Formats: sequence, structure tokens, C-alpha cells
Amino acid sequence: MNYEKGEFLYEGKAKKIFSIKNHEDLVWLSFKDSLTAFNGVKKGSFEGKGHLNHQVASLIFRYLSKNGVETHWESDPEVGSMVCKKVTIIPLEVVVRNRLAGSTAKKLGIEEGRSLKKPLVEFYYKDDDLQDPFLSDDQALLLEVVPDQKDLEILKKEALRIDALLQEFFKAAGIELIDFKLEFGRDPQGKFYLADEITPDSCRLWDYETGERLDKDRFRRDLGQVEENYQMVWERIKKEWESKI
Amino acid sequence: MNYEKGEFLYEGKAKKIFSIKNHEDLVWLSFKDSLTAFNGVKKGSFEGKGHLNHQVASLIFRYLSKNGVETHWESDPEVGSMVCKKVTIIPLEVVVRNRLAGSTAKKLGIEEGRSLKKPLVEFYYKDDDLQDPFLSDDQALLLEVVPDQKDLEILKKEALRIDALLQEFFKAAGIELIDFKLEFGRDPQGKFYLADEITPDSCRLWDYETGERLDKDRFRRDLGQVEENYQMVWERIKKEWESKI
Repeated sequence: MNYEKGEFLYEGKAKKIFSIKNHEDLVWLSFKDSLTAFNGVKKGSFEGKGHLNHQVASLIFRYLSKNGVETHWESDPEVGSMVCKKVTIIPLEVVVRNRLAGSTAKKLGIEEGRSLKKPLVEFYYKDDDLQDPFLSDDQALLLEVVPDQKDLEILKKEALRIDALLQEFFKAAGIELIDFKLEFGRDPQGKFYLADEITPDSCRLWDYETGERLDKDRFRRDLGQVEENYQMVWERIKKEWESKI
Repeated sequence: MNYEKGEFLYEGKAKKIFSIKNHEDLVWLSFKDSLTAFNGVKKGSFEGKGHLNHQVASLIFRYLSKNGVETHWESDPEVGSMVCKKVTIIPLEVVVRNRLAGSTAKKLGIEEGRSLKKPLVEFYYKDDDLQDPFLSDDQALLLEVVPDQKDLEILKKEALRIDALLQEFFKAAGIELIDFKLEFGRDPQGKFYLADEITPDSCRLWDYETGERLDKDRFRRDLGQVEENYQMVWERIKKEWESKI
């Protein structure tokens, strides 16, 4: 189907969102070239980053969808843009960790890279002014991000299912999935959909052999070769998966 | 029974701990006059504070014990000192909140004093070097502070029961219990006991009529009259409860 981009609705750190003419139930996501870290304090960009991330996100959404995950992805009208179901985003960042790294490793005083007996699911409150604070289940319910504990259980279970699928997806491309962030939305009927994006911006991805960082930590920690590594992730997963999905 | 204070074992921010001669299963807690806040960064003291806090803690432990709560309190050998069961402290601060105040109000962007539909239980990891970070249940289990989720459920349930009892205890003395911190320990058989202390150091206590702060926030926030308010809390609860326990 041909979609026509409508009016500008909203600009996030990595995407712009537009309406779609004659399709009230859909939105047009345009991936930006910008990179941000530390709640937007550190800023950067490279040309083509939006195109790369769109392609990674699209491939992953199609892979997950094929494996039974409900995602907001609908189609790719052009490189760099995605047509998605219009959903109401739940103001939670759902983080899954297979090894400890980043903020949680530091907070708990555990060395980066420690593997976990089982994946850890964490909730953070999506609120830039409050710097996305870490929440317990009870705090999330107090904030009424979802109506009920059973909704949190659904999100945790779905996040763990996606983790298992993504570990397999990346492993086949020689990449270890260390951790990642998900966002979910609900349609007007209250049904959950995986939303936002899954890209090297929102995952920690380490080379399976060398442990080399292939993700946004290259930007966050000034490791250099940000563009080359984003490109490599795309090429590796494309080679492995594009013909199979 | 007469207990004889033995060798010095450990000094915390507000108490010194000694062994007790010929009683390996007990310890001697001596309450200090010092006041600390912000993980020990702010320091103060007033004469008689140790005596006051000991008397408050003892009265509360006896009240809770009478109402079926297992506490580490055994007896009061002298003013300022308490004989307690020797337990292994679980490295969790269990916080119960009836109204939001302090760090959680700030973190969630909610005005101080907001009442809650139901009490909120929170876990913090007792680790000075890490500044006692807030934990989800899953993070607490990852750190192996207790072996199992069911232990966390026991702690939460017991904390809520203690909250209900303490709200009644303070209300009768014209005081509203806003929030408080508990610590639990286990004996060699694995049985849980309420441990540490419950005093104006570890509770937020507001005058029921005026909302005046009667607790450590007077010190933390430089509100003045710290000693007078600690004294008043003791006199109010003593007048109401000492003859009944």
C-alpha cells in the first residue's frame, strides 16, 4: 500500500513522527541521524545513521513478528522511514539484561560483563525531567503507568520472550546481546504492542569472539568508530537473516 | 537476669555493639548520642540522644512484641543499652511509606506529603560505599540478600503488619507515621526477627494536628529544635503507652 506522509506530530531524540493521510490508526516514523546519551546531555550524529537504524529496526521487527511477537511495525515506505500502528506509549523503559553492564553494574558494585543466572528485567519511568528513574513494580503501579500488577507481569514475560528470540537472532550473526531497552504501547482496545525501536542505540551488542563493543557505548564512552560498528551490525544481521524473513 | 557487657564488636553510625559474657546468642547494643544524615556526610549530636532513642526503641519493640511481632529485643540492662538476640542482619533496608516524602517523592516528581492509596514497601541495599541503592525484588535476589522471592514476600508482609501497628501506636500519641525504615535479621535456624531500632532517626513523624516535623528531618533540613522534638516524641508515647505495655 502507498502511504502519504502527513503533518508533523512529535520529535524525539532519534525519530520524528508524522501522521499519515487517510490512516488515523497509523503513524510515520522518520529515523534521524542524531545520537544522544546521558539523557540528551551528550549529542552527536553521523550521516546515514537514520537509514541504518531504520533497516536494523525493520529487520528485527519482522523477525519478531514472524516469531509471534505483536509489534507496531507495518511497512517500510522508504529507507529511513517506517509506518507503524498508532499506539499509546506506556511510560516505561523495559530493560532486559543477560550480562550486567552500564548503570546497574555500577549501582550494584558489580564488574561490567558479569553474566547472570537468569535474565534481569528492569523498569525505568520515561520522564526526561526526572532522568528516567528506576522503579520497583509497586512504584510503577503507584505512578499508574499501567492499571494492574498483571499488566507488569505481561510486560516482563513478553520482554523475556523477546530476549530469547533476540539472543538467537544476534548470536547467529556472531554478536552477543548483553542488554536492551524496549518500549510498549497499547492500541485503543488495550492490546499491547512492542513499539519504538530495537537498534544499536537501544542495545548493548558485543562481538561474540572478541567482546568488542558494537553499539552506542562507542559513542557514550568515546571509543571511536561509531559509524563503522553500526554499519557492521547491520551487515552481519542482514547477511544472516534478510533472506530468511 | 543480670548481663555483663563483654568485648567491643562493632560500631555503627548510631550504636556500638558488644558481646555479652557467657551469652553467645545475645549482644549488647549501646545507643550513641551522634546524629548522621546523607549517608554519614552530615554529622551532629546532642547529649542524652542515645538515652532517648534507646527508650523509644525499647517501648516500640515491647509494644510490637506484645502484638505478635518477633523482635530482637530481650531486655534493658541500663538506660541507653539494650540486650538483643544475636542475629545475622539481612543487608536490606525495608522502607514503608504511608505518605510520600524524602527521596522517593523527589525521584518520582511528587509533592512531599502526598498520601498513598496503600502503603508502599521499598528495599534498599545496605552498602555505604554504594550509598544504599534502591532495589527491585529481582535485583535483591540477584545480590542474594535472601535466597528466595518468598523471603522477600515474608519481609514485605511483616513490614506492612508492623506499619499498621505503628500507625496505631503513634496516632494514639497525636503523631502521624509518614514513613520508616526497618532492618531484619535471622537467627542460626533461619527465623526472621525485626532488628536494629525504630526511633525518630529511622521514622518520619509529623504532628497529627499541625504537620510539624518531629524526627530526624529537623536535623537533616536544619529546622532547629532537634533535641526538643526527640524529647517530645518520647514523652508523648511514654504517657500514652508505658502503663499499657
